[in-house]
Amino acid sequence: MADKPSIPKGTRDFPPLVMARRMHIFDTIRGIFKVHGFQAIETPAMENLSSLMGKYGDEGDKLLFKVLNSGDFKAKLSPEELSQTPAGKLGTMISGKGLRYDLTVPFARFVVQHRNEISFPFKRYQIQPVWRADRPQRGRYREFYQCDVDVIGSNSLLNEFELIQIIDEVFEALGLKVVIKLNNRKVLAGIAEVIGAPERMTDITVAIDKLEKIGQEGVRNELEQKGLSADSIAKLEPLLLMQGSTQEKLDKLEGMLEASETGKQGISEVRRLLEYVDTDPVGAELEIDLTLARGLNYYTGSILEVKSAEVAIGSICGGGRYDDLTGIFGLEGVSGVGVSFGADRIYDVLLQLDRFPKRAAMDTTLLFVNFGDAEVKYILPILGQLRKSGISSELYPEQAKMKKQMSYANMREIPFVALVGEQEMKDGFITLKDMESGEQERLSPEELVERLSSAK
Amino acid sequence: MADKPSIPKGTRDFPPLVMARRMHIFDTIRGIFKVHGFQAIETPAMENLSSLMGKYGDEGDKLLFKVLNSGDFKAKLSPEELSQTPAGKLGTMISGKGLRYDLTVPFARFVVQHRNEISFPFKRYQIQPVWRADRPQRGRYREFYQCDVDVIGSNSLLNEFELIQIIDEVFEALGLKVVIKLNNRKVLAGIAEVIGAPERMTDITVAIDKLEKIGQEGVRNELEQKGLSADSIAKLEPLLLMQGSTQEKLDKLEGMLEASETGKQGISEVRRLLEYVDTDPVGAELEIDLTLARGLNYYTGSILEVKSAEVAIGSICGGGRYDDLTGIFGLEGVSGVGVSFGADRIYDVLLQLDRFPKRAAMDTTLLFVNFGDAEVKYILPILGQLRKSGISSELYPEQAKMKKQMSYANMREIPFVALVGEQEMKDGFITLKDMESGEQERLSPEELVERLSSAK
Repeated sequence: MADKPSIPKGTRDFPPLVMARRMHIFDTIRGIFKVHGFQAIETPAMENLSSLMGKYGDEGDKLLFKVLNSGDFKAKLSPEELSQTPAGKLGTMISGKGLRYDLTVPFARFVVQHRNEISFPFKRYQIQPVWRADRPQRGRYREFYQCDVDVIGSNSLLNEFELIQIIDEVFEALGLKVVIKLNNRKVLAGIAEVIGAPERMTDITVAIDKLEKIGQEGVRNELEQKGLSADSIAKLEPLLLMQGSTQEKLDKLEGMLEASETGKQGISEVRRLLEYVDTDPVGAELEIDLTLARGLNYYTGSILEVKSAEVAIGSICGGGRYDDLTGIFGLEGVSGVGVSFGADRIYDVLLQLDRFPKRAAMDTTLLFVNFGDAEVKYILPILGQLRKSGISSELYPEQAKMKKQMSYANMREIPFVALVGEQEMKDGFITLKDMESGEQERLSPEELVERLSSAK
Repeated sequence: MADKPSIPKGTRDFPPLVMARRMHIFDTIRGIFKVHGFQAIETPAMENLSSLMGKYGDEGDKLLFKVLNSGDFKAKLSPEELSQTPAGKLGTMISGKGLRYDLTVPFARFVVQHRNEISFPFKRYQIQPVWRADRPQRGRYREFYQCDVDVIGSNSLLNEFELIQIIDEVFEALGLKVVIKLNNRKVLAGIAEVIGAPERMTDITVAIDKLEKIGQEGVRNELEQKGLSADSIAKLEPLLLMQGSTQEKLDKLEGMLEASETGKQGISEVRRLLEYVDTDPVGAELEIDLTLARGLNYYTGSILEVKSAEVAIGSICGGGRYDDLTGIFGLEGVSGVGVSFGADRIYDVLLQLDRFPKRAAMDTTLLFVNFGDAEVKYILPILGQLRKSGISSELYPEQAKMKKQMSYANMREIPFVALVGEQEMKDGFITLKDMESGEQERLSPEELVERLSSAK
C-alpha cells in the first residue's frame, strides 16, 4: 500500500473550479494584451544556471531551484571536493540548470539570443510559472504564475501610456476598481540631489513612505537616524507637506527641482505621460505617489503600481521602465518598459469580492440523464447537435440511479438536465429541467438547441 | 561582457509566430474538450520524487529530472556516503523533488489526493509541459507539452465513444484528415490464449505488427525464433490472412475466439463501441488494427491511436482504458480511459501541409504610423475606439522614419496601415492603406472601425 500522496510544500494543485477562475483571469488579460498588439512568447522552465546566477542578488541565488545534472553528476569530482565544497558551490558544480525565478531574466536572455529575428519595438507578453525556494507561507508559493507585458526597444512614453491603458482595461474587464500609482525614478533622484544627499535616494523614499503611519515628526527622526543632515531634512519639508491636485503637486515639485536636470526631466516625463492620458482618459484613478519606489535599483524612469480600491492586499500589478535589461547578457542600450500582473492576488481580490462570473464555476450547460442503452442511442445524435452549436453538454456515461446522476449535476453546478425516457423517444421530444427553478419544459431537439443557445 | 546566451539542450524558446500557432492548436483542443464538459486541472511542475520513482520502469527513473534540495543538501551525509554512493542513489538522497515526467502519474496522484472533493465520473483535461532527460534529437525534446483528456470512475464504453468524437472534432477543426485505429487488449489476450501462448501477447503483437514489412513468412520465422510452437503459429494463420470489412473481421475473430471468455468480451466491447459510432458517425476513418499494442502493460481494454492520413509521422494522438491507474497511490478499482494529443507532431503536420490559419501569423490588424506628437494626440482616442471594438491595433511608439515604421508593419505582417498627417487631422479622416493590394482609402473614424471589423 502506497503512502497517502502529497505534493511538495509551497506548490499547489488547481482543481477544476480554481482552474476555471484562473483561466478567467488569464483569458481576460490575454485578450487585452492581444487587442493592443502584444505577442506571446514562451521560454523553457529550465535555464542554464549561469543565466540565472548573480541576477537576483545573493539572496536570490539561494532561492534558485537547481536541477541535478543527468547521469553520473559526480563523476568529475574527487571525494575531497564532494565533502569539502560548501553546499551552495557544490550545488552549482553538479547542477548545470535551474528553474526560472522570474520572467524578466529569461526575457532579457530571449531578446539577446533572438535579436536578429525580432522586429523592434518588441511588444511581448508571457504568462508562465516561476519557481522560488522561498519559505512557503500564506499567499507566498514556491511555484506561481507571472504574467508580464513589456515593450522593448522604444524610449517613447507612449509605451507607458499603453501600459496604463492595459491596466485600466484589464481591471475594468475583471470588474475591479483600482488605483494606479505613478512615480518616476528621475524625480526621486532629483529630490535626493537638490537636498544634497544624492546617494540617499532609497533611505529618503523609505522614510517618506512612512509619512502616513509615523507622521512628519517621525519621518524627520528617521531621516536624522539615517544620518541625513538637518539642512537636507529641512529642504525635504515642503515635499512632505505637499498637497493638492496632481497638477499642483507637479508645479510645486518642478519649482523645488529647478536645480536638478535629472529631476526636471522626470517631471517633464510625468507631465507628458499625463498629457497622453488626457487625450483618452482611463477609468481608473491615477495618482502621483512619490513614495512609490519598487525596484529602485532596477527601474530608471517611470514606476507604476496598482492597488485595489476595494480590498487591502498590497500591489496587484506593477512595473516600470528599465534602461538596461539586456545589458546582463551583453546587449547594451536597449530600453524597455513593462508591468507584471499578480495573478494570485487578483484571484484573492475577485474571490473576496465575489466578482468571479458565475459561469466560470460551471462549464457544462446540460446533462442528459442516462436511462439505458436504447435512450442513449436516441440521445447521441442530439448531443452531437448541441455540441456543434457550442453548447457544452454531457451524457452521464453509466445507467446509474437517478439520484446519483442528479447529484453529479448538482456537484458540477450544471444548470440544465435533460430527461429522455420511453415516452419522449416515442413522441420525439426532450424534457428539459431547469435545475435552479425546478421547472420542466418539453422541447423538440431543435427547440432544445435554440433554448440553450440563449441560456449559454 | 557576458557570454552569448543560450538555453539547455533539448529545450526551446517559442517566439511569437510559433506561439501563435501553438495557441491555435491548444485553443482548438481546449474548445472541444470544453464543449464535451471536460474540466481543466493543473498540477505542480515538481512532484515529490517518491511519487515519480518506480512509475516508469528503471529506464524512466533515469530520465527523471531531479531538483536539488534547497539549503545544505549534503548536511546529513558523511564524506563516505557522498563519495561512495552511486550517482543514481545519491541523487535521490539530495533531491526530494523531481520534474513531472508525464501528466498521467500526477493525475493519478491528484485523483487519490482529492478523491473526496471530486464528483465522479471525473472528466478532466490537462495541458502542461513535462520534462524528460532523454537524449535530445530531431523531434524529441527534454521539455514538451502534453495534452491529456481522461474520464475516470466510469466503465462505460460511452466514454471511449466520446474520446473518438473528440479526436474526430479536434482534427476536423484543425483541418487534418486522420485515421483512428482501434484495438482492445482483451482481444489480444484472447488471441494469445486460444493459440495456447497466453503469456506471449507482446511477442505476438510485435510480430504481427511487422506483417506488412516482412510478409507472412517473415512473421512465421520471427514467431518461431521467439519460441512459439508450430501449433500456436498455425492457429495464428487465419488472423494474419484476415481480410474484409470491419464487421467481417469481427465475425471471423469472434469465431476464432469462441473458447476465450476474455477474447469474447473484447469483441463485444469493440462491437458495442462501433454501435455507438453508428448512432452519430464520425468523419474520420475508423479502423480495427490488431497490431495496435501501445502501452500493452498498462492498458486493460480499448486501445486508440490516431495517424495522419496525409503525412507519415507516426502517432499524433493515442491512449486507451486502464483499470488501475490510481492503484499506484493506494486507491484500487478506479477505471479510467483517456487519450493524449501530441502537440509537437500535430504542429509539424500542420506546418508541412501549410494548414495553419493565416491570421495566426499576424495578430495585429492595424498600425498607425507616428508622424509626431500632434498627430499622436489626434490618433489616441481613435485607437481606443478600435480596440474597444476588438480590433487589434497599434500606434508606432516613436516618430521614426517612414521606412522604418513600414518595415515594422511588414515584419509583423500587419495587413493595414493608417496614415494621419496634417491634412487628415484638418479634414477629420484617416488614410487607410491595404498592405497587400497597396490600395488607399479615406475613411472617417467610424468608417474605419466598420471597415476593419469586417476585415478582422
